[in-house]
Amino acid sequence: MEEINNVDVTPCTESDYLKPLRVHYNQNGTKKSWDFMRTHDSVSVLIFNTSSHCFVLVKQFRPAVYMCEWERTKTQPPQSAEKTEEGASEATAPAPESLEGQSAAEGESSSQRPPASAGVTYELCAGLVDKPNLSLEEIARQEVLEECGYDVPASKLKRITSYRSGVGVTGAKQTMFYAEVSDDNCVSAGGGEPREGELIEVVKVPLHEAMTFAYDERIPKTMGIIFSFIWFHNNMSPKYKISTNV
Amino acid sequence: MEEINNVDVTPCTESDYLKPLRVHYNQNGTKKSWDFMRTHDSVSVLIFNTSSHCFVLVKQFRPAVYMCEWERTKTQPPQSAEKTEEGASEATAPAPESLEGQSAAEGESSSQRPPASAGVTYELCAGLVDKPNLSLEEIARQEVLEECGYDVPASKLKRITSYRSGVGVTGAKQTMFYAEVSDDNCVSAGGGEPREGELIEVVKVPLHEAMTFAYDERIPKTMGIIFSFIWFHNNMSPKYKISTNV
Repeated sequence: MEEINNVDVTPCTESDYLKPLRVHYNQNGTKKSWDFMRTHDSVSVLIFNTSSHCFVLVKQFRPAVYMCEWERTKTQPPQSAEKTEEGASEATAPAPESLEGQSAAEGESSSQRPPASAGVTYELCAGLVDKPNLSLEEIARQEVLEECGYDVPASKLKRITSYRSGVGVTGAKQTMFYAEVSDDNCVSAGGGEPREGELIEVVKVPLHEAMTFAYDERIPKTMGIIFSFIWFHNNMSPKYKISTNV
Repeated sequence: MEEINNVDVTPCTESDYLKPLRVHYNQNGTKKSWDFMRTHDSVSVLIFNTSSHCFVLVKQFRPAVYMCEWERTKTQPPQSAEKTEEGASEATAPAPESLEGQSAAEGESSSQRPPASAGVTYELCAGLVDKPNLSLEEIARQEVLEECGYDVPASKLKRITSYRSGVGVTGAKQTMFYAEVSDDNCVSAGGGEPREGELIEVVKVPLHEAMTFAYDERIPKTMGIIFSFIWFHNNMSPKYKISTNV
């Protein structure tokens, strides 16, 4: 699907997106500190198309996942890779040593570099809560429109639940919604905002294949897909009178 | 439960834990870059005690969650808070401006500071895959012992599934296991490794309250708890012949 090349990794001392902070505090009288990052809360949406009895997901190349898989292909064990990485922050070379020989000039000839598909993941339609004047439902509605091309009123979004999407680094909260759409609501092909650099493929998973899809570990996906498919099976399936083969 | 005070936030230019990297790449001929961080994969374990018919969870103070909730209490809307934060990286003050007046000296007198409970979350027993010579099952076994005090052989751990625990920043994979334990397996109180700074409380949730617990949004928790409780309901409950009130 995707063609990825000219991969090069550099340390990142100034990022507009990742800004580590350190909190110092006393817990029950003991001095502690913790490194964390602020991030926006988010919404995710399980979309079910009642015309085709399919779930509507998004699929995209995720650089962080790709780099994680690249690391996994290394012959050296994870622990020694980590030591190399720690040394890299003091190195003068622009690329961390553990990726040396795989970067820019040399990277293309490496047989170790995984195919682009190693970084492609299936996800629920989702977005950041970064517009203070909009309700969560309204933000979810916009994501459904932008990413998947379905125009549904915010009032039709059903809140499933909320939880912490991270507890170690970010601590952000995610709220999950359920949206029923039909082919009549489809107003565009979706695909995200190209000016924001989004390259999103809209993917349909038939209801009768959903549980097999959810538990197939060869299909790279988020936990949100697995959880929401099971939620649908337990709460919505009877309405559609279809066996979902749990 | 926890007493948290003397909270102070500083920018974090050198962290042993958070090391932002930047990957440059070509996607279908278009130059792109993405800021990400490397992290270890992880395991999580749904523990069910067959003696008491309870799930065994962990509960701990999470600084990142606490800071996230603190931000939420601010009267200013999120967007203007974000602008202030961006300016803070160039400021000479040690603490980001958006937290000014809440840090160190002044923090204690602030009525805005949330109680420690705002940072306490319920989670599945979990740990990082940072020991290259151990199998995922063996790492999961160690976490069950260290955090929750149950000694079960790795061979008794049933793999539920795996998924990406992050796709934007880290791209790491998490594998979830199910462990049946009994009171006979309980060899200690658990609580984590004090020398690693862990302060973990072991919590039991009765099976008949599990689904209510899972969907109660007032109880701060990870998606892993919700997903695994439903997984148990669909796959294990018949064995225990108990209604779980979905």
